[in-house]
Amino acid sequence: MARIVMKFGGTSVADLDRIRNVAARVKREVAAGHEVAVVVSAMAGVTNQLVGWCQALSPLHDAREYDTVVATGEQVTSGLVAIALQEMGVEARSWQGWQIRLLTDGAHGKARIDRIEGAELIRRMGTGQVPVIAGFQGIGPDNRVTTLGRGGSDTSAVALAAALLADRCDIYTDVDGVYTTDPRIVAKARKLDKIAYEAMLELASVGAKVLQTRSVELAMKARVRVQVLSSFQDLPGTLVVDEDEIVEHAIVSGIAYSRDEAKVTVRRVPDRPGIAAAIFGPLAGAGVNVDMIVQNVSADGTTDMTFTLGRADLPRARKVLDDNHATIGFVEILDDPDVAKISVVGVGMRSHAGVANTMFRTLAEKGINIQVISTSEIKVSVLIGAEYTELAVRALHTAYGLDAG
Amino acid sequence: MARIVMKFGGTSVADLDRIRNVAARVKREVAAGHEVAVVVSAMAGVTNQLVGWCQALSPLHDAREYDTVVATGEQVTSGLVAIALQEMGVEARSWQGWQIRLLTDGAHGKARIDRIEGAELIRRMGTGQVPVIAGFQGIGPDNRVTTLGRGGSDTSAVALAAALLADRCDIYTDVDGVYTTDPRIVAKARKLDKIAYEAMLELASVGAKVLQTRSVELAMKARVRVQVLSSFQDLPGTLVVDEDEIVEHAIVSGIAYSRDEAKVTVRRVPDRPGIAAAIFGPLAGAGVNVDMIVQNVSADGTTDMTFTLGRADLPRARKVLDDNHATIGFVEILDDPDVAKISVVGVGMRSHAGVANTMFRTLAEKGINIQVISTSEIKVSVLIGAEYTELAVRALHTAYGLDAG
Repeated sequence: MARIVMKFGGTSVADLDRIRNVAARVKREVAAGHEVAVVVSAMAGVTNQLVGWCQALSPLHDAREYDTVVATGEQVTSGLVAIALQEMGVEARSWQGWQIRLLTDGAHGKARIDRIEGAELIRRMGTGQVPVIAGFQGIGPDNRVTTLGRGGSDTSAVALAAALLADRCDIYTDVDGVYTTDPRIVAKARKLDKIAYEAMLELASVGAKVLQTRSVELAMKARVRVQVLSSFQDLPGTLVVDEDEIVEHAIVSGIAYSRDEAKVTVRRVPDRPGIAAAIFGPLAGAGVNVDMIVQNVSADGTTDMTFTLGRADLPRARKVLDDNHATIGFVEILDDPDVAKISVVGVGMRSHAGVANTMFRTLAEKGINIQVISTSEIKVSVLIGAEYTELAVRALHTAYGLDAG
Repeated sequence: MARIVMKFGGTSVADLDRIRNVAARVKREVAAGHEVAVVVSAMAGVTNQLVGWCQALSPLHDAREYDTVVATGEQVTSGLVAIALQEMGVEARSWQGWQIRLLTDGAHGKARIDRIEGAELIRRMGTGQVPVIAGFQGIGPDNRVTTLGRGGSDTSAVALAAALLADRCDIYTDVDGVYTTDPRIVAKARKLDKIAYEAMLELASVGAKVLQTRSVELAMKARVRVQVLSSFQDLPGTLVVDEDEIVEHAIVSGIAYSRDEAKVTVRRVPDRPGIAAAIFGPLAGAGVNVDMIVQNVSADGTTDMTFTLGRADLPRARKVLDDNHATIGFVEILDDPDVAKISVVGVGMRSHAGVANTMFRTLAEKGINIQVISTSEIKVSVLIGAEYTELAVRALHTAYGLDAG
């Protein structure tokens, strides 16, 4: 017998038939003798409608009222899933953040969870009752509803799994697990049985949208075993666990890519102490998130500074740089929105030399030019021309021995 | 300067434009120097959708989960109206039942208000903040959301007006006041400037659907002055007040009708003590609401018992009577679903003789047969053939001098 948190996303509860399907899955776990808590998102499309109404009434709406409006989506689902479970003979009741008490900070619209009072839920699960918890929401210090920001239901689920001392947090979604790369690009992509928190975190941060980054961080910190699996198929998914649990590591777990990148080069800035701060300080102040940064070797007292950022931020970044021309002192700014970032991720890299070199050699063999490189302990990322994305991902998938069959 | 509760029904907040219109009306009262609290219903159609989902998942759904689901409709409106007010420069915030605390009993789906903690709202209104309160809902002894039943938003508004010591409770709706009768039937129907609580109560109970009966009862008990007015026109409405406030009473305030009636005659039952209980006990037990009752004079030791009920209850009533044939001992049951109830209402009747007689004479002159009569202190109702409804209402409207111009 285990204690399990089951989390269902918006597409899994999109209509009444899917809600019944969710209830049937929960019933199966209960029938197997497990203690189960359920966390639900809003029905697909509902959150967008509610957000749209708030924005239409006031582009700068009060985040506290936004939370009041938007949190109703999950509240509706929690009640409907409880009804569906009861109809199948499973004892269930809905819980809102303020009832549990799932306490957050006061940052309405993007709150962080401070503390969860889990004792009453644990007691009820012990008697066979299934709590059906509205995800994505809590209660702030002002006694008002808070929301955790987009994708916050995954974070709710992981935080609840930690608070309820659950053995596992199952995240049901519209994909059936974590793959070695995007199966739409590489037909031979394989589903991973297990992946380490750190590798999952790097994959999530570079565009594998299976789990929200914050939820993986929290799972790693609280040592919550997370399983990603499909709510539409009846197959085991991918377990996201501590790397100690993974007996045999592949050196590389997966290849991720992101096409939402742009590259900016600030040409011929004075090569003096403080020049990086002069460039990146104003960008950070304007909320522009800079990713990879490369500073070329200095010549004649000037240097070139190249960095990448989300493509949507490009116009804002150019404006910030132009506004600060006097303090930075560049000659010109070049940008390129047609770039993609390709990342090779795996905790096995720590103990294996030559991983980066395999990447560089493979790309060279395909005639793909590398524009920028950045590395972390378990990840190597390169920036290439966007048109080479599929070619690069497929070649690397084969080079690291990830192809199925 | 006055303190006013403004309540807006579902059609008044049906879309974003109407919500802006509501906010503009509230702003006008605030600008006039009044302290204002707003009570809102769900956007038109939303409650029906939510109720439909609950029923589709389980016809016998848990009323506590139903409340959790359905109360979100008002929650959404409260947040949106607060945003619209802020956008117009009016300080506002939304309040749910559990935040105020609007305490109800535990009868989920049809809860009654026990107590409202109004002090914090009064304090904030004193500083110029407008509370925007989700109507129709409260919090029960189980710390869960309760709803007050259909039309409960009117009751919320009146109860809040009492708790907030408001000078007036303005109920904005899609009609512009209380009329002497249905203007769709009588072109010369007049809008009343004032009507007494008792008369309004009788009109509401016989089919004038302007205000929910419970809200009028509560207003009368708590002496809350209620105004019914249109949210689409800019006109004074009808004040529902204590009869002492009405200087000159018309003897008759209005003519109401209901077509949703049916008549049942239980033929030749034994004329013995307890026979009424034998008939109406089982009907009450089955939830059939009986209205008018007539027992004919006895002949040969048997009598006929005639009563009226809601037409929708007719099949159930027949079944209950058939099931209890042995204990009642009737010869046959006749029913007639083609009947209408016409009522003449007015607090002035108390001090004026001849009101009923005017009704009987007027109907006789038009050749309309009266099937059943019932009277109260301020109402005379008769049952007639449904086809005579419009003819009867128009003739009575003229006979009591209610015609406009």
